[in-house]
Amino acid sequence: MKLVYVIPGPLNKKEVERRGIILKEWASPHVKVDIVRVEEGPASIESMYEEFLSIPATARKIYDLEKEGYDAAILGCAGDPGLEAYREITSKMLVVGPGMSSVHAASMLGYRFSILTVSNSTIPNSHELVRKSGLTERLASIKPVNIPVLDLATNRSETLKKIKKIAESSIVVDGADTIVLKCMSMGFLNIAEELQNDLGVPVINPAKAALKAAEFLVGSGYHHSNRAYLQPPKLAFGKVESLEELFIK
Amino acid sequence: MKLVYVIPGPLNKKEVERRGIILKEWASPHVKVDIVRVEEGPASIESMYEEFLSIPATARKIYDLEKEGYDAAILGCAGDPGLEAYREITSKMLVVGPGMSSVHAASMLGYRFSILTVSNSTIPNSHELVRKSGLTERLASIKPVNIPVLDLATNRSETLKKIKKIAESSIVVDGADTIVLKCMSMGFLNIAEELQNDLGVPVINPAKAALKAAEFLVGSGYHHSNRAYLQPPKLAFGKVESLEELFIK
Amino acid sequence: MKLVYVIPGPLNKKEVERRGIILKEWASPHVKVDIVRVEEGPASIESMYEEFLSIPATARKIYDLEKEGYDAAILGCAGDPGLEAYREITSKMLVVGPGMSSVHAASMLGYRFSILTVSNSTIPNSHELVRKSGLTERLASIKPVNIPVLDLATNRSETLKKIKKIAESSIVVDGADTIVLKCMSMGFLNIAEELQNDLGVPVINPAKAALKAAEFLVGSGYHHSNRAYLQPPKLAFGKVESLEELFIK
Amino acid sequence: MKLVYVIPGPLNKKEVERRGIILKEWASPHVKVDIVRVEEGPASIESMYEEFLSIPATARKIYDLEKEGYDAAILGCAGDPGLEAYREITSKMLVVGPGMSSVHAASMLGYRFSILTVSNSTIPNSHELVRKSGLTERLASIKPVNIPVLDLATNRSETLKKIKKIAESSIVVDGADTIVLKCMSMGFLNIAEELQNDLGVPVINPAKAALKAAEFLVGSGYHHSNRAYLQPPKLAFGKVESLEELFIK
Amino acid sequence: MKLVYVIPGPLNKKEVERRGIILKEWASPHVKVDIVRVEEGPASIESMYEEFLSIPATARKIYDLEKEGYDAAILGCAGDPGLEAYREITSKMLVVGPGMSSVHAASMLGYRFSILTVSNSTIPNSHELVRKSGLTERLASIKPVNIPVLDLATNRSETLKKIKKIAESSIVVDGADTIVLKCMSMGFLNIAEELQNDLGVPVINPAKAALKAAEFLVGSGYHHSNRAYLQPPKLAFGKVESLEELFIK
Amino acid sequence: MKLVYVIPGPLNKKEVERRGIILKEWASPHVKVDIVRVEEGPASIESMYEEFLSIPATARKIYDLEKEGYDAAILGCAGDPGLEAYREITSKMLVVGPGMSSVHAASMLGYRFSILTVSNSTIPNSHELVRKSGLTERLASIKPVNIPVLDLATNRSETLKKIKKIAESSIVVDGADTIVLKCMSMGFLNIAEELQNDLGVPVINPAKAALKAAEFLVGSGYHHSNRAYLQPPKLAFGKVESLEELFIK
Repeated sequence: MKLVYVIPGPLNKKEVERRGIILKEWASPHVKVDIVRVEEGPASIESMYEEFLSIPATARKIYDLEKEGYDAAILGCAGDPGLEAYREITSKMLVVGPGMSSVHAASMLGYRFSILTVSNSTIPNSHELVRKSGLTERLASIKPVNIPVLDLATNRSETLKKIKKIAESSIVVDGADTIVLKCMSMGFLNIAEELQNDLGVPVINPAKAALKAAEFLVGSGYHHSNRAYLQPPKLAFGKVESLEELFIK
Repeated sequence: MKLVYVIPGPLNKKEVERRGIILKEWASPHVKVDIVRVEEGPASIESMYEEFLSIPATARKIYDLEKEGYDAAILGCAGDPGLEAYREITSKMLVVGPGMSSVHAASMLGYRFSILTVSNSTIPNSHELVRKSGLTERLASIKPVNIPVLDLATNRSETLKKIKKIAESSIVVDGADTIVLKCMSMGFLNIAEELQNDLGVPVINPAKAALKAAEFLVGSGYHHSNRAYLQPPKLAFGKVESLEELFIK
Repeated sequence: MKLVYVIPGPLNKKEVERRGIILKEWASPHVKVDIVRVEEGPASIESMYEEFLSIPATARKIYDLEKEGYDAAILGCAGDPGLEAYREITSKMLVVGPGMSSVHAASMLGYRFSILTVSNSTIPNSHELVRKSGLTERLASIKPVNIPVLDLATNRSETLKKIKKIAESSIVVDGADTIVLKCMSMGFLNIAEELQNDLGVPVINPAKAALKAAEFLVGSGYHHSNRAYLQPPKLAFGKVESLEELFIK
Repeated sequence: MKLVYVIPGPLNKKEVERRGIILKEWASPHVKVDIVRVEEGPASIESMYEEFLSIPATARKIYDLEKEGYDAAILGCAGDPGLEAYREITSKMLVVGPGMSSVHAASMLGYRFSILTVSNSTIPNSHELVRKSGLTERLASIKPVNIPVLDLATNRSETLKKIKKIAESSIVVDGADTIVLKCMSMGFLNIAEELQNDLGVPVINPAKAALKAAEFLVGSGYHHSNRAYLQPPKLAFGKVESLEELFIK
Repeated sequence: MKLVYVIPGPLNKKEVERRGIILKEWASPHVKVDIVRVEEGPASIESMYEEFLSIPATARKIYDLEKEGYDAAILGCAGDPGLEAYREITSKMLVVGPGMSSVHAASMLGYRFSILTVSNSTIPNSHELVRKSGLTERLASIKPVNIPVLDLATNRSETLKKIKKIAESSIVVDGADTIVLKCMSMGFLNIAEELQNDLGVPVINPAKAALKAAEFLVGSGYHHSNRAYLQPPKLAFGKVESLEELFIK
Repeated sequence: MKLVYVIPGPLNKKEVERRGIILKEWASPHVKVDIVRVEEGPASIESMYEEFLSIPATARKIYDLEKEGYDAAILGCAGDPGLEAYREITSKMLVVGPGMSSVHAASMLGYRFSILTVSNSTIPNSHELVRKSGLTERLASIKPVNIPVLDLATNRSETLKKIKKIAESSIVVDGADTIVLKCMSMGFLNIAEELQNDLGVPVINPAKAALKAAEFLVGSGYHHSNRAYLQPPKLAFGKVESLEELFIK
């Protein structure tokens, strides 16, 4: 199985590399996982505006990656921005989002989950994610951590302490029995794993969940439904010959 | 009241002009409405991919239009692509979408509405539109017309006949009492108005509904909630100084 | 455009006049708005019982007003009592309710709204209003102000202070980003407008929202669906010749 | 146990008497059931307008009946018009509606029920009834019989044949496993009982269901919740001394 | 009418007798009610595991009871474990559960109910009960009492005091207007009746509600729908001749 | 990773062996999967009654298997009977059901899925499965195949043809874009895989989906939430010392 993890923006190369190594550690023995970044886009994604900014260049990258024979592309942003579009323009390569992978994993492990998200500004898209997944009735709460994505790693122990407190309140006050850490940067800081030990409930790491969901779905022989995600008609009916022609300047 | 209608792509100038004239006819006497187009983007929007393609340039255009003192911008695409993002980056100018305007208008006129949409490929985003509006339980059905957007005007009487038949089946089979014509190009071909006469039920023209909803909301003294659509944090907290800096190449 | 605002009970004439003047100020330049009151009914509406009490005489009034050539009648009670009945017995004149106008306006401006209602006794019909509008999933909370309708104006600054505190709790505790002031008397005391300035979120004035929604829908060329609100069969099939004959003493 | 069945309009006395006898036959041995009619109101109820017409006089009647020491009043109209109001103005006497009794009975007997209602014009209030009962997800379909209430008895075998065909389609096409006959006149024609025999699924007779639900709830020692149905504040706080004063002419 | 109350486990005989006497007191004069216990099963039911443990032997008991000519069997456990199975294997005798009887009774008396359940471990099956009944939108909250079933009677006044406090918080904080005491042991300690007096809202006793619901449904002439609860196919199509043969050792 | 597949009844040993070999072929290289059967129980599961029959002995088996150090147990019945109970009595070994695995897999691949189930008698528990998973709004339809489980393999090509026709109607009429084959016996006949090729949409094989979901969740480091599935209190608080003592004869 050959997977590729796609970071939807110009993350610095050292960090890309570091994440690539972690992904390889997580992957099952029979699975090869590469990592690529998109050369242009937002520095981090903390708003709907930045979500949308990331999509056109990421779409082109994913379109090209399909030709390289990957079985699945894993989107490197926990809000799954553009997922439907990426699925429209691929026909053999599965595209998986960490957001959907996380909320489905959570729903397979307990009755009600809480989402811890980066900031107030990502609450609406977290609601949107849950609504799109169809799992609204499983949601206990969505709570902001309110630490800027780019500062999460700077003071890891402070970050962890703050997140733990919020997670505990999700459990005790909101009735969650499972936690989703909706942030890819947290995913590569081993935070979910520590929290899970401390709290005694499953804490979903979206980066790992997305990788493992890709293994799950590819390993079962599935591709996203071409009946659900139709090719853009101009492409399907031959009015244009390439993805590029769909964009007119 | 000063409104601007924004076409999210490079529609040909003659058609832009024609639509501008119609909008002025529709507008209330005390309302001034301008029309602008975005210089780059998809030729028409018939897929999620093309929706996403249209957003970055349209966002920049809307951001600039706010500085020109408009009370509201009306998005020129019936699926409302990017609406949340446009609301995040404006603070005084209301942004209104034809999709939301239409489904709310329909819900104020009857119990259950059907959406007639361009093609199979725009059904998922029509469901998404209804889900986002919170009006799922009012939806009778979504039915594709399956005429390419760019061909709608070519054979107007054929188009009308086909649409009428589909609308009738929505009413008789699906139990709709109100119809939403989810396509801006149909909006400027007087199709909704003729259908309404023929069918005896309200038929919502999304272009007109969006203009009138802008008059409704601006006239009532409302702006979209800044508490709902938060400014991107990097901008809000002064980490970047302009919208452009949020995109890194 | 010719609209009429119908107060569903014997409000004192001076206050009727005062409200009439305010409505004219709110109306768009091309819109003529009259005000009438129904000569018998409850002094104010603070229970389901009083809602039902107001309907028969108001229905007869609205039935008569249609013959005077109005484009729309605006119901002067925020709970929309009898709206479906008024729509059944009119065929050309649109009937609009402040309740439905407010919750749809709120839903077009933000993600989640709270309703501030007069008293505990009007909470059930507020839930009913939201349920009927189909917007349940957009509701953050319903909170009683617990000031009798007839006392609202006596101590306006006290009223305002109390309402503001409740609205703030709706925002902070319940997560509302938009407020609906469900009370017509508050609507004519400029309370919503002051609150909106203070709170920085949209605060819907149901009286203004209903007037502007009428302008919106009539201006778009719509009437409520005759397929949704069917004429009483005895009238439709000629078994009786007038509305009066439907009531037997 | 002492119950009273209240017909919300001037049904002819002979028919009132006939129904009274049937009710006595249905009642359990320890239960006394009287029947009364309201002297003014609609001839039959086939629209929202007629529902509302029936309420004020019926409310006064029910208010007076409470003083006569009845344990429960049973509303004689399958749409439950005014039920909430009647509950607001009674404090010891339970008020029960045939609509709510029927949909709850149906939900206790199977997974999904269909409602057969009088005509197209009573479909919206049937939906409303289900929505108010909270049982929307148990509803398979609502189908009109389209026989005028006043003609049901004239050709009973024709009526029965037509209803049977519609019920069968509810079962086979819509997946219902239980049928609700939403019409009081049918209730006193032994139609539900015959249909139940023929179809082999429970067919709810709303008149009998309402009587038996009253026995169920009174027999268990329950009254409707005074916390749910609050007394009109003017009455509760002594601003008026009687129900009559709430209506001003 | 001939009913039988079935305790799904080996409760001590004295307590079985005591409950039998109470049931006879509750029953309407024309109703005969017997009590039986199942000879093997869990000591009390406080988990899903114990629910499932109770079912096979209870099913055999119920299957046999049908042959004795009972009109209805009343399940003696408030979570309704196995109800669907018991209905599949009976064809003339109605089977009624206290859980479903209670939530439907509550929904007929108010707008929103809270369930007080035995312990944290019975919260999930309480949610399940509400979900199965289709009444999710009527639920205000589910709160654990956290007194072991077998200790409830030991200190009755302490039990009552604790439950009252929890019920009050359901009303004031969660907005309930009706309470369901989901525990059969409480049902036979007169706790619901005392609470109802103290709190002034209906408090549903599941044991009494189930008995009275059986009277309601049998008295109306209904049996659970054989179209909803199909006989196991091997039995229906004659592949086995008795219930016993469905279980292979 | 060490998994065990548990057949909840006395399937013949040859077939158990055959399924064991297939499971090993499906498993990822680093995964060891054993198969066991429960020695008593129903011959096949085609009703709620048979579901419940299978649980007590299967619970004991799963309880014992945890002590053998398995990372996860996979339930061998597509309706997931008893899953909550099995999770209550295990603390380190994950328990996974094919039903939940299938509906979540389907929801990760498309917008709307249809379930093809064995017979009319398994439709209610299919609805229950979807309701429990929280994915009701993703369900297009549930359709019975109406071939007895024990006859599926006898005429495989006939079976396949019939299922294909039903699946096509799910897609065209009900709007499904993904199919779930809810039957373990079909799972081991390569039917899903052939159908997927023919239909061009994902067809979920519940046996494979459950195995791969176990790999997904165990591989991510998750166990079902002990906060969701609480140990039976008598066991948790030391009132009994073993599972056996919870059952009294």
